Amino acid sequence: MAPESGPRRSERSRQAILAATRELIAEVGYGKLSIEGIAARAGVGKQTIYRWWPSKGAVVFDSLLALSQDSAGDIELPDTGDIRTDLKSLLRATVEEFADDDFQAPIRALHTEIMNDPQLATAYREQMDAPVRAAKLRRLRSAQQAGQLAGDADLDLLLDMLYAPLTQRWLLRSGGLDATFADALVDATLRAFAPA
Amino acid sequence: MAPESGPRRSERSRQAILAATRELIAEVGYGKLSIEGIAARAGVGKQTIYRWWPSKGAVVFDSLLALSQDSAGDIELPDTGDIRTDLKSLLRATVEEFADDDFQAPIRALHTEIMNDPQLATAYREQMDAPVRAAKLRRLRSAQQAGQLAGDADLDLLLDMLYAPLTQRWLLRSGGLDATFADALVDATLRAFAPA
Repeated sequence: MAPESGPRRSERSRQAILAATRELIAEVGYGKLSIEGIAARAGVGKQTIYRWWPSKGAVVFDSLLALSQDSAGDIELPDTGDIRTDLKSLLRATVEEFADDDFQAPIRALHTEIMNDPQLATAYREQMDAPVRAAKLRRLRSAQQAGQLAGDADLDLLLDMLYAPLTQRWLLRSGGLDATFADALVDATLRAFAPA
Repeated sequence: MAPESGPRRSERSRQAILAATRELIAEVGYGKLSIEGIAARAGVGKQTIYRWWPSKGAVVFDSLLALSQDSAGDIELPDTGDIRTDLKSLLRATVEEFADDDFQAPIRALHTEIMNDPQLATAYREQMDAPVRAAKLRRLRSAQQAGQLAGDADLDLLLDMLYAPLTQRWLLRSGGLDATFADALVDATLRAFAPA
């Protein structure tokens, strides 16, 4: 058999590095994640990592991007016909995800990087967040057409008011985060954008 | 003259370390801030810093706590008698502060630490955020008594819905942040908690 060719070996190393990054975030947490640790786990040299990625944040981003592309497909949100029911389901699910360490630890790591790297923030917004946000906006527009939201409601503002308080309580640990809070947030947001 | 006594010398070193930390955050940014750099600027050994603080985050926290205690005093918010006017003034001022690098860089650094250190998050909430939040709640209660907010409005939820979208756009760079956005946020929040 011919020896494995260069490009194929490269891709295998790349995948090993991304998998090692995800494993180590889950095992040791983001604070203790290092390029050295990733290299050791992936069985490559540090220089191999630095040849492909400029920073720890960039490796973390790519390791999560691969995951989100696997799972994204064509995102469609629940649509029972009642926007209040659907938003409460969505926000309660988000609250549960934030309570699940396997789920939230890597996203917290990514957000830490985003806060201190404007380029990564743009990449996150365009590549990871945009498809999810577009699906949410589609669901809100259909509620608007059904007369469940004001015809002139600013749906971008609505989404921010709905999700930012959840994200803040999760990221900054600034308050309790449970189903009751999620429901109250949905009810208040729907009051703000109720049809006339 | 007697040589300077131990406790006085300690306090002088402590103040030099806190000042060096604030200066370096402004000059090199949080990402490049190191205990070594702080020690060099303050003219002390690294071990002196580690004797008093367990982590970089803890030094950053204390350096900003000293500032906020200098400026806090008894916080009172603007009260023109009209809650809409006052909240718009407040949020527009916050938008301006977030655009000012001297102001926002150290707070961004602190929030980075808070995200990855639950103990620091608690210290921040209790020592730095609580007095400001209490002042905001006082102003909201007086608006409630004046009949400008619903009598049963959940004022904690109101504050989260008002400030979290600003904080998120600033920290995660997830969208534009200007006076128009601040005004729209105030108007939508007041609709959500309008008197019956």
